[in-house]
Amino acid sequence: MTRSTTRDAELRERAAQVIPGGMYGHESTKWLPDEYPQFFSRASGARIWDIDDNEYIDFMCAFGPNLLGYNDATIEAAAERQRRLGDTLTGPSAAMVELAERFVALVSHADWAMFCKNGSDATSMALMVARAHTGRSKIIMARGTYHGSHTWNTPLKAGITPEDRANLIYCDYNDPQSLQDAAAQAGGDLAGIFATAFRHEVFRDQALPDPEYAATARRICDETGALLVVDDVRAGFRIARDCSWSVVSVQPDLSCWGKMIGNGYPISALLGSDKARAAAQKIFVTGSFWFSAVPMAAGCATLDHIRDSDYLERMVRVGTVLRDRLQQQAASHGYTLRQTGPVQMPQILFEEDPDFRRGFCWTAEAVKRGVYLHPFHNMFVCAAHTEDDVRRTLEATDAAFEALRNREPTLGPVEKLAAFAEMR
Amino acid sequence: MTRSTTRDAELRERAAQVIPGGMYGHESTKWLPDEYPQFFSRASGARIWDIDDNEYIDFMCAFGPNLLGYNDATIEAAAERQRRLGDTLTGPSAAMVELAERFVALVSHADWAMFCKNGSDATSMALMVARAHTGRSKIIMARGTYHGSHTWNTPLKAGITPEDRANLIYCDYNDPQSLQDAAAQAGGDLAGIFATAFRHEVFRDQALPDPEYAATARRICDETGALLVVDDVRAGFRIARDCSWSVVSVQPDLSCWGKMIGNGYPISALLGSDKARAAAQKIFVTGSFWFSAVPMAAGCATLDHIRDSDYLERMVRVGTVLRDRLQQQAASHGYTLRQTGPVQMPQILFEEDPDFRRGFCWTAEAVKRGVYLHPFHNMFVCAAHTEDDVRRTLEATDAAFEALRNREPTLGPVEKLAAFAEMR
Repeated sequence: MTRSTTRDAELRERAAQVIPGGMYGHESTKWLPDEYPQFFSRASGARIWDIDDNEYIDFMCAFGPNLLGYNDATIEAAAERQRRLGDTLTGPSAAMVELAERFVALVSHADWAMFCKNGSDATSMALMVARAHTGRSKIIMARGTYHGSHTWNTPLKAGITPEDRANLIYCDYNDPQSLQDAAAQAGGDLAGIFATAFRHEVFRDQALPDPEYAATARRICDETGALLVVDDVRAGFRIARDCSWSVVSVQPDLSCWGKMIGNGYPISALLGSDKARAAAQKIFVTGSFWFSAVPMAAGCATLDHIRDSDYLERMVRVGTVLRDRLQQQAASHGYTLRQTGPVQMPQILFEEDPDFRRGFCWTAEAVKRGVYLHPFHNMFVCAAHTEDDVRRTLEATDAAFEALRNREPTLGPVEKLAAFAEMR
Repeated sequence: MTRSTTRDAELRERAAQVIPGGMYGHESTKWLPDEYPQFFSRASGARIWDIDDNEYIDFMCAFGPNLLGYNDATIEAAAERQRRLGDTLTGPSAAMVELAERFVALVSHADWAMFCKNGSDATSMALMVARAHTGRSKIIMARGTYHGSHTWNTPLKAGITPEDRANLIYCDYNDPQSLQDAAAQAGGDLAGIFATAFRHEVFRDQALPDPEYAATARRICDETGALLVVDDVRAGFRIARDCSWSVVSVQPDLSCWGKMIGNGYPISALLGSDKARAAAQKIFVTGSFWFSAVPMAAGCATLDHIRDSDYLERMVRVGTVLRDRLQQQAASHGYTLRQTGPVQMPQILFEEDPDFRRGFCWTAEAVKRGVYLHPFHNMFVCAAHTEDDVRRTLEATDAAFEALRNREPTLGPVEKLAAFAEMR
């Protein structure tokens, strides 16, 4: 393998001068194996090319936004039509109404939509709407769940004050009793219950929502008048053509969306039922680019595609083939994988790998062979992934398992992960 | 005047079904005269067209993002080149480093840059960096100042808890003594002082920063180790080719930017000095679209234009002509205008107009004649405004003054503003 990394190394050096730590946030490679490229030059379908022009089958899909394929012709044409007219203007365009109408038609619980830019915008708006609706303060959410990087939820502790989280009560995801205990603790001051679409924390096995847990959350909200919020920012439209909790037959009052709703164009959304409409009207939230027309035109085209195509069934099919074959392949090399979460959002961890050294080695070897996996974060299948991509992926992972077997005796603990754990 | 408003009325009806209140945020017309269109179809240069194809000379510039003219050919070409390659990817592009390098070269105090999407993202990051840097909690900011719509600053009270603001201490902008009093109140727990570039609150006269106030803020920070933050989200690059407080010779430790830095493409930024770099590395902040390449390519082209062209001098020239002639024109109709703020970000209020009835009537009459002004929010000149635009604007405002004089006896208090005041 003669894989150039020259330009990436040069850019990292320049970045270290003018960006704190050289890079930050969820796309930083500082907690990934050294073999991962930091900078990319282009993308098409399910492929990305790094800045040195190395090609990868991409199972991160920009951490979710790539739902239908990078540079999808239909979405790009819709965006381009709007772009010629205008994007960020002194008021919204018709596309804002058209996109809200599409969401209300597609998502069962939704009677209205508000658009924003980040997933964190949508979850913070849900927080405010729940409080404005109830006139109460306390919010229940599951320990360790990621609901965005605003001060009330960001996973690292730097820059956070105790007051930022004074009104949060934590429960354990999928544990109905802990939810009831949390509600009892909130007493008469419960404004809302936040729930992630499914458990998709880093470093651990994923879990679909337990139906009893979901029903308990709904019941507590109905009994207390609090609002039930499903955070679908990461999972939206990869689980269902509806809110992800539709699979456990529970309808929230509010749901948060982002990432994939414009197939990569920057837009997120808070959807709500009529019950929460008056409160949503009372809060003041806004952003300079929240009403920009191009991402809304892209969103309309994306939602039409979601409604009309078999994109979801194709992702499930490809994800299933990948999971099944990987399990066999791992076994043939004497390894057992813990593959959890929906097949279209796979988490792949190694058995007997408490410090992730196997996962780090295996994904590093895969990246060197043109397959971009993640050693501890859930991955994403998109509608542009084909069974041929899976075949090529398996060629790379087969060689990666072999390399792992050879390197196994030399592997040590992953030091950068220890540093990460200290910051949490 | 035969000005159609049919499509706008239809869209408002549809919007009322699927968007709370029909529209929200800073681009909602619910606190504007009834004559204002809510929805727009296209834009070019300094012109916007509403959904009924009525044309306006636009003095809001999308509330700031339009700095060089809508659909500026150079910016659009740079964005289009990047778009063909890719936008939201699994990692950042070279454009992120190139944009950070441009900011560091252009803004005196800046040694590094972090990019985000909303102005609110940048101000909240500044809050976190100040706290991470000092290990302290308290933040001083001026009463009534807008630093974004996150819970710690949004101007309406719905959905906010007392804890959201427990660590804020308020002073009066441009009053050095009140700043010293606030610092005394913070005692040993002062993390930072926030300062808006200049006073640009709604409903009141604007004010440039008082040099003594700015120097006092800098001195308190130097003495206590707290960080000085200038919020340049609204004013950035309209006052100077540097941080806006460069005009009073004070350098902050952090500055917040947004709106205009990609000439309408969605991007904002936190800039910092080396002193704050280690703290910036410690916080965890991110967003799904923060590392998208297209807005960064647009940002590079915008900053090159800022550095190399006379865009700022042209805006000042056009703004000066507009202010001078409007003052004469108002006098010729027997009115006195209070025109405050920099001429390139004008605030226009009427003398003897405590309940804004005159301002509402005059701007409504101007909108009917194809000039989009704002009755209580600062406006924005862009580099595409010409002296011919000013000439046409003055024709419309002349007729608007005459209409105001005729309607004056029938004017009553503006009821929607009373409703707004109740929500604050």
